Amino acid sequence: MTGKTTLRGAKIATQASQQGPYGLIEDGIIVISGEFIEWVGPRRDLPDEYTELEAEDLNGRLVTPGLIDCHTHVVFGGDRAQEFEMRLNGASYEQVARAGGGINATVQATRAASLEELIESALPRVDAMIQEGMTTIEIKSGYGLEQQTELNMLRAAREIGKRRPVSVQTTYLGAHATPPEYKGRDDAYIDEVVIPTLRAAHVEGLIDAVDGFCEGIAFQPKQIARVFDAAAALGLPVKLHAEQLSNLGGAQLAASYGALSADHIEYLDEDGVITMAQAGTAGVILPGAFYTLRETRQPPIELLRKHDVPMALATDCNPGSSPLTSLLLTMNMGCTLFRMTPEETLAGVTCNAARALGLSDRGMIAAGQRADLAVWNVGRPAELSYRIGFNPLHKRIFGGQA
Amino acid sequence: MTGKTTLRGAKIATQASQQGPYGLIEDGIIVISGEFIEWVGPRRDLPDEYTELEAEDLNGRLVTPGLIDCHTHVVFGGDRAQEFEMRLNGASYEQVARAGGGINATVQATRAASLEELIESALPRVDAMIQEGMTTIEIKSGYGLEQQTELNMLRAAREIGKRRPVSVQTTYLGAHATPPEYKGRDDAYIDEVVIPTLRAAHVEGLIDAVDGFCEGIAFQPKQIARVFDAAAALGLPVKLHAEQLSNLGGAQLAASYGALSADHIEYLDEDGVITMAQAGTAGVILPGAFYTLRETRQPPIELLRKHDVPMALATDCNPGSSPLTSLLLTMNMGCTLFRMTPEETLAGVTCNAARALGLSDRGMIAAGQRADLAVWNVGRPAELSYRIGFNPLHKRIFGGQA
Ligand SMILES: [Zn+2]
Ligand SMILES: [Zn+2]
Repeated sequence: MTGKTTLRGAKIATQASQQGPYGLIEDGIIVISGEFIEWVGPRRDLPDEYTELEAEDLNGRLVTPGLIDCHTHVVFGGDRAQEFEMRLNGASYEQVARAGGGINATVQATRAASLEELIESALPRVDAMIQEGMTTIEIKSGYGLEQQTELNMLRAAREIGKRRPVSVQTTYLGAHATPPEYKGRDDAYIDEVVIPTLRAAHVEGLIDAVDGFCEGIAFQPKQIARVFDAAAALGLPVKLHAEQLSNLGGAQLAASYGALSADHIEYLDEDGVITMAQAGTAGVILPGAFYTLRETRQPPIELLRKHDVPMALATDCNPGSSPLTSLLLTMNMGCTLFRMTPEETLAGVTCNAARALGLSDRGMIAAGQRADLAVWNVGRPAELSYRIGFNPLHKRIFGGQA
Repeated sequence: MTGKTTLRGAKIATQASQQGPYGLIEDGIIVISGEFIEWVGPRRDLPDEYTELEAEDLNGRLVTPGLIDCHTHVVFGGDRAQEFEMRLNGASYEQVARAGGGINATVQATRAASLEELIESALPRVDAMIQEGMTTIEIKSGYGLEQQTELNMLRAAREIGKRRPVSVQTTYLGAHATPPEYKGRDDAYIDEVVIPTLRAAHVEGLIDAVDGFCEGIAFQPKQIARVFDAAAALGLPVKLHAEQLSNLGGAQLAASYGALSADHIEYLDEDGVITMAQAGTAGVILPGAFYTLRETRQPPIELLRKHDVPMALATDCNPGSSPLTSLLLTMNMGCTLFRMTPEETLAGVTCNAARALGLSDRGMIAAGQRADLAVWNVGRPAELSYRIGFNPLHKRIFGGQA
């Protein structure tokens, strides 16, 4: 029985059972074997073979799956604090643009950064998330917009997963914006840069999924479709930034490719929701950008509930529209801004976030799942969403290791 | 020269000078003697007598005054996570009330708590603030609503200042709400409980200032006036929760007593602003409650600017309308929700917060001020307001001690 340990005295939000809210076990035990969970259940049901194992008493603390941030742009160069300040001091968009603001500022700073600088500047942000119990993070490219920098962003993401006890899922987002050198030539950018870089990054094993930004200010559905065709040819799953500022039918497009998720989706309509439900595409809710951009159109939470579309929740951590590094605050925003329930927000950063990443080995506390866990100094799961700017993490366990 | 140290290589937001934003010194030195700042200025101006002192190099990090949270209800019993969850699951106010929710839930839990329990439950919240560079906190009573518990809340506040390296300013808020046993007898509650308890707490040295809640759902101006008269007779300064949900002329009332501050003030009009300006009464902006209650009426930031009313900014930390323990997030909310500038939000948690507490020995980095400092891993002051849910504190210095 070496290599096995147990956690006892745990209130466990398994997220695994349909029996009552949170799949909660009031007085539970978790048996960990190596990187995985071997058994979980109420104390009274513990099989005899585990009773002699060394046990850590959690004294009634809440255990949840390790948190999963399924949508981030956490690797980038520079920051946009100066632009933030200029805008609040009354500068017009034109003045900000003339001073080098907007996404092009981040593209320039990211292109100017070395691989090591990209890693080093992202680590404090990732560390802040880890300190709140995060164990899996998705990281997108999309600020290089030319081959070498896109590759470097993905390499930085992979390297972060080696330097920290965290799982990194990489997403290639070449179709994020058209860079200045291709201004007015979106189609050429897709064909000459986005698709060749997709293939080059795939050869290097840098891509877990492929994303795009489908919007009036970004790419049209038929341009995204070309990228998705190239992804499908390589056997890569897709996802999409869709219906954030208008409805271009991006969610339907994504669903038609069996997308893992459609993200933002403030302007999604019921037809789009139904298509997502049929395709098994998750909806990723991003309240940080809604808050920062002072949007007023909320994502269709009621429709997503009605049609049983899994709702995930993520920071969207990025330097422009969501410089947010707290999944706990994201949960509070999900409740406060979008009236999600605390049960929905916890599912949004655990089981449904895993689903949005196409991962079936995490996001729940169940036998066979990864032993990625968060232990909290709280009495009930709703406290994780209720407090604002407070971190009650007691300990984090990643692949069985504290 | 024993007992003196210097910080060099500091970018210093002194908040002390009218020379340019933040009173910023790009390459500055701070000389600390015991609990106080002895000298501050640009490196080139350092007097010869200080050049031999031991110096800590901050490598260009930003130094600000220690942060000041000038409006909190951080001492209380219980929490309101269950009520938060019930509401999001669609419970009506009546159902929540029947389940024992609302402020009365907190009053019951606070009355049931021992002095030690009040201290112990508040400390994690205070510690979260300290970890973000907070060095002075105001703490209100107001969940006892009977003499012994009001006294215990104030004793707990004083004790927190002994157990942690932080200055505590106590505020007596007996006139927060009418307790159930006085329902419909607000005047009797004021005369039989609020004013006698004020006198008893003052005898024990527990009161630094006196506050009230002037609102349709709380107390009328003439009831508050009786409390303020009693405070004035004891030589105690006053402040007021005013114009949060409607305009009852609370700010004018407060100003007529020379109040330190009027707080919330979403419904304040220009006449009220002018009266505050004339009385030297600060405005305390509380975006956490605005955010949590999903209010739409913003405080009159433009009018406060126009009439030079000092704007402070605080968490309003409380279990019902603002379970917020982050002053940095409060600064971001001040910018994002109310379009305050980063310079205004930093002043709001430093020099103007000191002013709202009637303290002239802190909130700026200047000779003679307390050596309460925060050192940040950021390049420019605006970064403190720009990021969401990220803590870049490098170190905190309280009364000259790291
Ligand atoms: Zn995004
Ligand atoms: Zn208050």
